[in-house]
Amino acid sequence: MSDTTAYLLTLACPDAPGIVAAVANGIAGLGGNILSNAQFSEPSIERFCMRMRYEAPTQEPDAMAATLRDGLPVDDDIELVVHEADYRTPTLLMVSKYDHCLRDLLYRWHAGELPVDIRMVVSNHWDLQEVAANYHVPFVHIPVNRDTKATAEAKLMELVDEHDIELVVLARYMQILSDDLCRQLEGRIINIHHSFLPGFKGARPYHQAWERGVKVIGATAHYVTADLDEGPIIDQDVERVTHAHTPDDLAVIGRDVERIVLSRAVRAHAERRIFRFADRTVVFS
Amino acid sequence: MSDTTAYLLTLACPDAPGIVAAVANGIAGLGGNILSNAQFSEPSIERFCMRMRYEAPTQEPDAMAATLRDGLPVDDDIELVVHEADYRTPTLLMVSKYDHCLRDLLYRWHAGELPVDIRMVVSNHWDLQEVAANYHVPFVHIPVNRDTKATAEAKLMELVDEHDIELVVLARYMQILSDDLCRQLEGRIINIHHSFLPGFKGARPYHQAWERGVKVIGATAHYVTADLDEGPIIDQDVERVTHAHTPDDLAVIGRDVERIVLSRAVRAHAERRIFRFADRTVVFS
Amino acid sequence: MSDTTAYLLTLACPDAPGIVAAVANGIAGLGGNILSNAQFSEPSIERFCMRMRYEAPTQEPDAMAATLRDGLPVDDDIELVVHEADYRTPTLLMVSKYDHCLRDLLYRWHAGELPVDIRMVVSNHWDLQEVAANYHVPFVHIPVNRDTKATAEAKLMELVDEHDIELVVLARYMQILSDDLCRQLEGRIINIHHSFLPGFKGARPYHQAWERGVKVIGATAHYVTADLDEGPIIDQDVERVTHAHTPDDLAVIGRDVERIVLSRAVRAHAERRIFRFADRTVVFS
Amino acid sequence: MSDTTAYLLTLACPDAPGIVAAVANGIAGLGGNILSNAQFSEPSIERFCMRMRYEAPTQEPDAMAATLRDGLPVDDDIELVVHEADYRTPTLLMVSKYDHCLRDLLYRWHAGELPVDIRMVVSNHWDLQEVAANYHVPFVHIPVNRDTKATAEAKLMELVDEHDIELVVLARYMQILSDDLCRQLEGRIINIHHSFLPGFKGARPYHQAWERGVKVIGATAHYVTADLDEGPIIDQDVERVTHAHTPDDLAVIGRDVERIVLSRAVRAHAERRIFRFADRTVVFS
Repeated sequence: MSDTTAYLLTLACPDAPGIVAAVANGIAGLGGNILSNAQFSEPSIERFCMRMRYEAPTQEPDAMAATLRDGLPVDDDIELVVHEADYRTPTLLMVSKYDHCLRDLLYRWHAGELPVDIRMVVSNHWDLQEVAANYHVPFVHIPVNRDTKATAEAKLMELVDEHDIELVVLARYMQILSDDLCRQLEGRIINIHHSFLPGFKGARPYHQAWERGVKVIGATAHYVTADLDEGPIIDQDVERVTHAHTPDDLAVIGRDVERIVLSRAVRAHAERRIFRFADRTVVFS
Repeated sequence: MSDTTAYLLTLACPDAPGIVAAVANGIAGLGGNILSNAQFSEPSIERFCMRMRYEAPTQEPDAMAATLRDGLPVDDDIELVVHEADYRTPTLLMVSKYDHCLRDLLYRWHAGELPVDIRMVVSNHWDLQEVAANYHVPFVHIPVNRDTKATAEAKLMELVDEHDIELVVLARYMQILSDDLCRQLEGRIINIHHSFLPGFKGARPYHQAWERGVKVIGATAHYVTADLDEGPIIDQDVERVTHAHTPDDLAVIGRDVERIVLSRAVRAHAERRIFRFADRTVVFS
Repeated sequence: MSDTTAYLLTLACPDAPGIVAAVANGIAGLGGNILSNAQFSEPSIERFCMRMRYEAPTQEPDAMAATLRDGLPVDDDIELVVHEADYRTPTLLMVSKYDHCLRDLLYRWHAGELPVDIRMVVSNHWDLQEVAANYHVPFVHIPVNRDTKATAEAKLMELVDEHDIELVVLARYMQILSDDLCRQLEGRIINIHHSFLPGFKGARPYHQAWERGVKVIGATAHYVTADLDEGPIIDQDVERVTHAHTPDDLAVIGRDVERIVLSRAVRAHAERRIFRFADRTVVFS
Repeated sequence: MSDTTAYLLTLACPDAPGIVAAVANGIAGLGGNILSNAQFSEPSIERFCMRMRYEAPTQEPDAMAATLRDGLPVDDDIELVVHEADYRTPTLLMVSKYDHCLRDLLYRWHAGELPVDIRMVVSNHWDLQEVAANYHVPFVHIPVNRDTKATAEAKLMELVDEHDIELVVLARYMQILSDDLCRQLEGRIINIHHSFLPGFKGARPYHQAWERGVKVIGATAHYVTADLDEGPIIDQDVERVTHAHTPDDLAVIGRDVERIVLSRAVRAHAERRIFRFADRTVVFS
């Protein structure tokens, strides 16, 4: 008797009758059994997406994907991927001087909460080298100024290619990326913005929030696009505040929200729960 | 060309390979298209449950259910039901003197938030007759004391039968039901308990909570069983409180939690999102 | 022995040493005892505010206020008011067609949660007359169109004056008020905006929120100023949403947030917990 | 001109008229100015408590405390303490093998969020030595078994005395302390219990919670008393969960709640915001 492995299938394609039956039959044909399934169809653009866990006799994921794709009742614009369920997404973290998101991601990865493989930490400063070292993760210093931005980004992309990085996380990285880099990494680069977007775009959002006298502050994790602070939102959360909090207090409170929201977004991405439809995301729970 | 109708299928059965494929093929065979699907398999008891919305050429729901059941790869212990998606569950509300849950359910029903058909309000007091009347719902007074409990419960069951009631909601009904009645209505009677179960079972939970000095109070909606305050939990929520709140303050704050939790539980039941496995519930979001 | 009454003192004045001692001594001189006290000093504008509950032999509140004011170590820009603690703020509610905030405020008032005296409901439509009638509150219909706006607002101000209204609540009132009316009612008119300001100002915020793909929606209660959607924020809250919610779903979910936030703001105002400093509010908990 | 320092006064005493005036006059007499003030009077036991920040010409805190105490209109059962506002409570952390609470407390202390002086980490295991070392905090290993418990506790108390420890934090320390030790450290030892007390006392609370099918899990920070899991509650919080979470998932989710609740409790204690009245706490926000 052959061994059995758990797999994770993600599918995005034009909506049409019979897709679920086709996939379910395909998996039955592979000798498999569906463990869980989530699906959604966005009416405004008639696009279907599905995330399915199944177990089957151990086979090559790409071969299974090809078999399943052939059985679909649609022909074009199909994104169908199969991974082993315990696949860990190769990930690179970018930071500057703030350490709370970095520490949180490293801790959760270390504790087994995040199915990622953190291959390195890149920073434009040296400050957080020790934090990376404590978790035995390589730390690469790539300084950036106006004149060296293009070189620095080229160096980053070299690292991404060399280490097969599939996810870049801006864990409070304080440099604006070029449009070109955003496009190259589209769909695989996540940022944490320290405000409840679309409120308080731009710089110093906690000061903006204080000035406006808001009673709730928040943070937003989103995919990075060339349009700053406008990329598709992955997750958001908030915390209540009062008149007695100073802008510095808001920043302290905000750190807790930032690290929780960013870690949820990274987990959702690494667990392949997110689908992008134009400017919006589907995030299966 | 025939008309199309949206249907809602719920299925609970022993777990086995091929169930999703069987249902998906069955629906394709009926000319249908799956709109959404949620499924869960409880490993500890190897039972599978599924809630699927689909559209298909208009047919008799029971006939479709029989067809789909025949296609399943399991034989026994199958609960498979098909309803038209816009089906409204015939519902009876029971109250005593507290009005907040009653008002909330009537309002949400009136506003179209709850797919129920509220056929009557039953109470052991006259106090809330006007509230029912404001929403043009019949109000039936069934007084209860130690000597008349059996008669009162018989009268209630008569109403349930006569009006084809499928869901009874105890919206702060302050009488304990007999074990026999609990069994007769098992799985179709929901209670709101004004504490965060399993903390503070029994009477006067807000006083108990105050005595214990808790910093968060809650409410719990659950199916009623003969085991008081121990039925399967459907939903719970909480609100933060402080030392400055008196037991009466806790009761006021608790009212908001109670009405939100109860309305969510009623909606989940009426939308057929809940499956019971022994003492626990699966509630699809 | 004279009777004792509970009083509520509010004070806003320039910050200076000795204010608390002066008030505490003044109350001791009146034979009183402080029950609770909250105070805050806004450093950026060096203004102090205080809310104190005390009991004292029954006296005229205005006379006590004068005595206490005389004892202060500052001379100008003093707002010091004493009310009996059980004072109920005369209130007028304005609505259009949405009924959820109106029902919620009437219910909470009826249940004793809000120290207001709701003297009438004013609307530019007839739809909600029955809701007001159910609570035995007078309903005044003041139709508004482009040509009659000035007349309608004059009629409103007549009612405000005639009935000694101290608080006007826009409970989803769908007309924009003139700058002149906003100024006349400044500091005593509260609006509920159905978004998490400053995000999604203007019309159809739930559609805006859906378009942007946010994962949390909110509502904001604020004082009305001539600057639309920019008045000082009193309270805000949020609810999590997902990709599966339509704009209509967001509106339904938002209703619960709106009514909770508005009722909290009205209660805070009526309990005299709010102080306005420029564009921000202090709200004592 | 003398220098000015910020001080923090805490007072608990029998309730009586004139206390606030007495303290305010005392501070004025010291040349001081009140910055903020919170007070509460528990009616059931007629005890008053107050936390006041003020600035005054630099003096010996104990001398000021004596002066202020003399001015009070009550004689006995007075606890009045003055500290410099930037005082950092000498603290000892106890852990076993779980690291999430330890890391969180060390991080927040390092980031300046907690006014404590963490003088050492004590553990009955060696596992977390490196975590302490990363923050340059001494790590003391005190093994415990049935036979050595008395010796181990004596060793702990030696450390407490030798290092002037004022607060002991059980950051998921997995040994039960003797009644005697609980009494010696009463009021200065805080525990985090990984359930929403009073639900799920005792061992393996996440398994208990899963068995019961709860929809919300929580954590509770409380002072340790000889009565296990029954000490006065300081703070609690919760997170929503679903049927799909396993007991292990609940433990992972619970870790976030535990560390947030424990850090809030430690901060409240170190900021001297907590007063104990019998089995309950007052926690000023």
